[in-house]
Amino acid sequence: MDDRGDERAPGRHDDGPDGQRDERPDGQRDERRDERRDGQRHVGARTPRREDARLLTGRARYVGNVRLPGTAHAVVVRSPIAHGRLTRCDPKDVWTVEGVLDVIIPADAEGMRLPCVTLGLGQLQTSYPVLDEAIRYVGQPLALVVARTPEAAADAARLVDLDFEELPAVVGVERALADGAPLLHPDWGTNVVTDSVLGDPDCEEAVAGAEHVVELAFSIGRASPHPIEPRGVVASFTDGELTIRTSTQAPHHVRDHAAEALGLTHDRVRVVTGDAGGGFGGKEHLYPDEALVCLAATRLGVPVAWTESPGDRLVATLPARAAVHRARLALDGTGRFVALHADVVGDLGAHPSNVGISPFAVTAVTLPGPYRFDRAGARLRGVVTTTTPTGSYRGFGQPEATFTRERLIDEAARRLGIDPVELRLRNLLGPDELPCTTRTWQPYDSGDYPRALRVLRDLVRPVSRDDGRRRGIGFSCHVESTGLGPSMEMKAMGMLAGGFETAVLRMEPDASVVVASGVAGIGQGIETALAQLAADRVGVELDRVRVVLGDTAVTPYSSIGSIASRSLAVGGGALIQAAARLREKILAIAAHRLEAAPGDLEIAGAAVRVKGDPRASLTLREIATSAWRGWDLPEGASPGLEERATYDPSSSTYAYGAHAAAVAVDPETGAVEVEGYWVVNDAGVMVNPAIVEGQLRGAVAQGIGMALTEEIVYTGDGQPVTDYLLPTTREVPGIHVVTLETASPVTPGGMKGVGEAGTIGPPAAIGNAVAAALPEIADRVTRTPLTPETVWRLLRNAGAQPG
Amino acid sequence: MDDRGDERAPGRHDDGPDGQRDERPDGQRDERRDERRDGQRHVGARTPRREDARLLTGRARYVGNVRLPGTAHAVVVRSPIAHGRLTRCDPKDVWTVEGVLDVIIPADAEGMRLPCVTLGLGQLQTSYPVLDEAIRYVGQPLALVVARTPEAAADAARLVDLDFEELPAVVGVERALADGAPLLHPDWGTNVVTDSVLGDPDCEEAVAGAEHVVELAFSIGRASPHPIEPRGVVASFTDGELTIRTSTQAPHHVRDHAAEALGLTHDRVRVVTGDAGGGFGGKEHLYPDEALVCLAATRLGVPVAWTESPGDRLVATLPARAAVHRARLALDGTGRFVALHADVVGDLGAHPSNVGISPFAVTAVTLPGPYRFDRAGARLRGVVTTTTPTGSYRGFGQPEATFTRERLIDEAARRLGIDPVELRLRNLLGPDELPCTTRTWQPYDSGDYPRALRVLRDLVRPVSRDDGRRRGIGFSCHVESTGLGPSMEMKAMGMLAGGFETAVLRMEPDASVVVASGVAGIGQGIETALAQLAADRVGVELDRVRVVLGDTAVTPYSSIGSIASRSLAVGGGALIQAAARLREKILAIAAHRLEAAPGDLEIAGAAVRVKGDPRASLTLREIATSAWRGWDLPEGASPGLEERATYDPSSSTYAYGAHAAAVAVDPETGAVEVEGYWVVNDAGVMVNPAIVEGQLRGAVAQGIGMALTEEIVYTGDGQPVTDYLLPTTREVPGIHVVTLETASPVTPGGMKGVGEAGTIGPPAAIGNAVAAALPEIADRVTRTPLTPETVWRLLRNAGAQPG
Repeated sequence: MDDRGDERAPGRHDDGPDGQRDERPDGQRDERRDERRDGQRHVGARTPRREDARLLTGRARYVGNVRLPGTAHAVVVRSPIAHGRLTRCDPKDVWTVEGVLDVIIPADAEGMRLPCVTLGLGQLQTSYPVLDEAIRYVGQPLALVVARTPEAAADAARLVDLDFEELPAVVGVERALADGAPLLHPDWGTNVVTDSVLGDPDCEEAVAGAEHVVELAFSIGRASPHPIEPRGVVASFTDGELTIRTSTQAPHHVRDHAAEALGLTHDRVRVVTGDAGGGFGGKEHLYPDEALVCLAATRLGVPVAWTESPGDRLVATLPARAAVHRARLALDGTGRFVALHADVVGDLGAHPSNVGISPFAVTAVTLPGPYRFDRAGARLRGVVTTTTPTGSYRGFGQPEATFTRERLIDEAARRLGIDPVELRLRNLLGPDELPCTTRTWQPYDSGDYPRALRVLRDLVRPVSRDDGRRRGIGFSCHVESTGLGPSMEMKAMGMLAGGFETAVLRMEPDASVVVASGVAGIGQGIETALAQLAADRVGVELDRVRVVLGDTAVTPYSSIGSIASRSLAVGGGALIQAAARLREKILAIAAHRLEAAPGDLEIAGAAVRVKGDPRASLTLREIATSAWRGWDLPEGASPGLEERATYDPSSSTYAYGAHAAAVAVDPETGAVEVEGYWVVNDAGVMVNPAIVEGQLRGAVAQGIGMALTEEIVYTGDGQPVTDYLLPTTREVPGIHVVTLETASPVTPGGMKGVGEAGTIGPPAAIGNAVAAALPEIADRVTRTPLTPETVWRLLRNAGAQPG
Repeated sequence: MDDRGDERAPGRHDDGPDGQRDERPDGQRDERRDERRDGQRHVGARTPRREDARLLTGRARYVGNVRLPGTAHAVVVRSPIAHGRLTRCDPKDVWTVEGVLDVIIPADAEGMRLPCVTLGLGQLQTSYPVLDEAIRYVGQPLALVVARTPEAAADAARLVDLDFEELPAVVGVERALADGAPLLHPDWGTNVVTDSVLGDPDCEEAVAGAEHVVELAFSIGRASPHPIEPRGVVASFTDGELTIRTSTQAPHHVRDHAAEALGLTHDRVRVVTGDAGGGFGGKEHLYPDEALVCLAATRLGVPVAWTESPGDRLVATLPARAAVHRARLALDGTGRFVALHADVVGDLGAHPSNVGISPFAVTAVTLPGPYRFDRAGARLRGVVTTTTPTGSYRGFGQPEATFTRERLIDEAARRLGIDPVELRLRNLLGPDELPCTTRTWQPYDSGDYPRALRVLRDLVRPVSRDDGRRRGIGFSCHVESTGLGPSMEMKAMGMLAGGFETAVLRMEPDASVVVASGVAGIGQGIETALAQLAADRVGVELDRVRVVLGDTAVTPYSSIGSIASRSLAVGGGALIQAAARLREKILAIAAHRLEAAPGDLEIAGAAVRVKGDPRASLTLREIATSAWRGWDLPEGASPGLEERATYDPSSSTYAYGAHAAAVAVDPETGAVEVEGYWVVNDAGVMVNPAIVEGQLRGAVAQGIGMALTEEIVYTGDGQPVTDYLLPTTREVPGIHVVTLETASPVTPGGMKGVGEAGTIGPPAAIGNAVAAALPEIADRVTRTPLTPETVWRLLRNAGAQPG
């Protein structure tokens, strides 16, 4: 398919590539496109990921592979109760176990706190204690035991003598909001931490006055990021310096948190992350258990190691998504969208986490998606419950917003008798309407939203088979905020900000190039993508470029790290700016020595040449050596070839996409199978299309998990009873990916982001497909995950009882 | 003593401190001086060395303390013969030893070369092979054996089957220069690698025409730098990256050498030096044995460790000094110095080393010292001999030049019947004559050379005791080139250049400050001195500053490292420039936020205040946090607080000093005891007087060793037969140090250097003292070391036979 003849396609970036790129599993390059890249040979190529050599051969630099002599091992003692007070924590029996080195109880960690985000209550809570005698969730850390071996630590951890005063659990936001609900933080006087109106204040009036209103109540299950590498820390303290080897997306964030918690100056803490085996939002801050491991290392003076167990992951690693929405879509008689309003209640868990209300706020502000609305707005509440605090997870509120909006649209289409794709096309913002700012303050920059949906519609092939299962196809559209720029509203709310990145580029004396960036390698291929960018922008071969990431002693400061689909857009943006400076200096030195004007020079074949004069050239090595020796440089040029640039985005940039799912539902079991899945995505300029497609496919698999199987469930008394089902290759079909490419007018390289895109569409597309397959329960397909039991119950309640 | 009333003292730097500083073992501060430091609280203070906490408690980061899992151990097989050809090197028996992992013989290291410096023969040799079948010294590496344990490696190393074709040895420069001497490099056709005239071409004519000429032949013994930490390497090769943990003065130099030798790009080699336990010039490049250890690591994929044994040190670590001078001082009838000429022949050993002829060239160009001459010059030759190549050693040719010049002066004084101090004072360059450039191209910048000698004269107290020993006092004066700036002559000779340094200063979000510098910590206290400079120049407390050194992955490029008394003058110069930029940015942010002019602000007490308005202030932490968050910055300011500056000195700067020694000679044994030692030294602005004095005292001890006991001696067939005697506390008296302080007009902070100063004066002062004690042999006190045997023989030959 080649859609580039489409003259109407607006939002194209004149200088950059755009148009549609077919899936090319064969790695074949589209030569016509490359001509438009103005000498860029590596950007746009399906370069094999350089990190894979390590990752696929057991040589990845995971925390579990760190071996330091004399390492001790830690085990965390966690609360078995959901709510109450720790009345005894006596460690004396612990010392009966041979090899025990240290026990940390709440009294030993007094004053140690970690930061959190609250909104709306005048920042009632800006931090929380690492160890707290007030217990608010099962799994809350109560003590840390350190021993010479993991076995001794585990044995000893069982001997901490604990006693409690129990209080009633508060599970689910409805319970927390109910009159007379037990208060988790009695001094606050409420379980509601935030109650804000976002977007149009008169949105509800607009809804009330509309001709048609579709109102549904949605429930989003509590899901958990499950990176392949568990959380883990090896902390060591030598000569006043704490080194934390940990699997993280945000080394500097962890560093700053650890320093503050331990009362060390920031310069005394070094965080090293080698290859983080995935993060998905779950590794962007320092956790209490990790802080305790650091404390133990400073107390003992020997390295202390700890790795999250599967049990830890379910109770101690921040889950996410958990929310309920009561939402209304208002339309006029022609099917035009008039207004969209949602009442979003987020489950914060025991206390606001490092991101607090932010993901639910993102749900509220991204609710309008790619559509035109006269009014849009939300009421946003965050409530505390006696469960693990909730945090960040790939998509960060956007899959939830998309699920709610897109389900409302399909339900409206069903009620109005309009084809769901047609209804969308009528209301999608057209390319001629961009740039524009939504009613919820999102400054959309570029793209052709209707085209994505049209391309998708042409791709989708219904499955038809006579096996007793009922089939349907569902669509969803979304816009994704990427490259996280400052948002005045978010700043005002105290939320994420400071999204700049710095790149340092150095050409060594032998003309090899080192790139140091503050973003982190978390399996997403950023090491390869940055190398491609650097090779093109400096003008050297790819194998001459080395990328260094993830060590606060080496890599530039990044206040927020590799989150929010920003690593390439922002980290790459900084790299492009630094590379331009490096190239300029190289050409200035060459011009001086060749007695030519810099404009008459070109870099090619590891040399700088005078265009049109094949004899006048200097190798890059000659130039680099003289730069580092300080020999024969232009007047005023400082020795060396190292340039540093900081890119501070003026705004976020906006990727977008359209997804479709074909499902088959077994009416006897309620089991939903995804038989076909199609993605059209535009993430701006693609540095490496193979990585873009890989990111999309992996994220769609995660989205299928959220849509169908993954959920952490609590009993009424706050005990987690979870059989957490990650999708496997049996649950994930082949995923067809088509990429469009509209350059971002915001970022230096025209890149947007694609880290989260794939997670945003699936719950909506699959929900719509299930609703299409089962029209009798269509208006009750309003929750994630749509487990067999959920679907089976809906069908039974609708009278279409199985069997 | 307070000499600051001396109105004549010129060369003073108006803005900076100068004058004389008495020894203050009590650490008391001279308040009057501090007033002149314009708010500098830490510079000039006797701050305890922060590195000592590690060094003195067994926590130093020496190579021997590196523990990497699975480390293998290497032993070097060395040549037992001085000259010949390796005809067999069969490693097969090595493999009979359990635990052997690898054997490297010359055939395995073909093409592996390390750089060297030759002059005068059109760069006949620019590199030498790491393993060579042509053998030119005892100790030359022939093979490397690697095994799981050091014991297995040592056992196996004995089993390499070697055979040789022997050739006659060539020991001593006279032998190498003799007609018919065997040629070490037959293709060169000569053993003389360099034969150049430096300084005034008509110098010899000027000598010939003078009224008085004193001519003596000097012989400088081969001495060896003996740092407390031996050389050592732990090399590891992971994921294409070679990490070399080694004890070095010049991490980037080692990196570049290793990369080139192994065919790796520079970005793939990382050199880490923690605390180098001294260097003294012996650790400024990669040695062949170290290169072999790196090669083994790349072959095996496991870490490989090697540490120099005492035997290795004497045959494989570059010694130095070895030279003979035939020198003439010409005077007129009034005792005015007319000309000085020396015929310098340096013993290069088997082939030019990484520094080749350079130390001998420095002898030639620094020969005039602090005196006025109508003409000065030298003939410079370097010859190869079948001995270990000679290299760099603290003082780098200057102790030798000083010994020769000052001995000639004393001999002239004796012959002319003039007091030696008086003769010096007549001929010393006066402060009103500076700046000036010597006849040998040294651009002296500032100082008061006569004052140093006058102060010294007043300090010296003769020892008088009736114990049968004969006593004398000797003086010497010198000028020392420090802070190594570019010298056109040296560049023309292909010698050291590129002496810039870069400093990176970062104020972290919590207002702690990190300094990264390319210079290396080698026990000289640079970590403390840079911290003092940074604290003052940024305006923070000392304990908020951390200094990071010695890791090519972290610290800025330094092409030559911590050599040539340049770390503080050049590294500190870069720091001062970076600190000025950092301070400017801090004030700009504060000015923006306080709505004040930057000029109205001051940094004090961890805050920026509006002068005269105690209420208007911001803490540094507030400023730093907002800088790193990118919040509320002045228009155009980039986020973050990190500044980088490169200081490329326009010229060297020149320290100076005067030394005096009181000796007692036992006429029965020839044993010389140094009973008193006095130093007056001016190293420019002193950042830490305690460190300056410590450097001087330690170096004087080394100078006493050179003067009296230390020498590597070879038999005629090239076998080293050395009982290498380092001076102990029994041989080193209390050393009286007085410091003057004339700011350098060249360097940003006015600092000169003091790393080598103390080694320069002792051989001359002690030689003069011995000559004064023994006038009957005065004109034969012309060699170092003046061992008991040497002195005893001189006395016996003079007819004053003992006993």
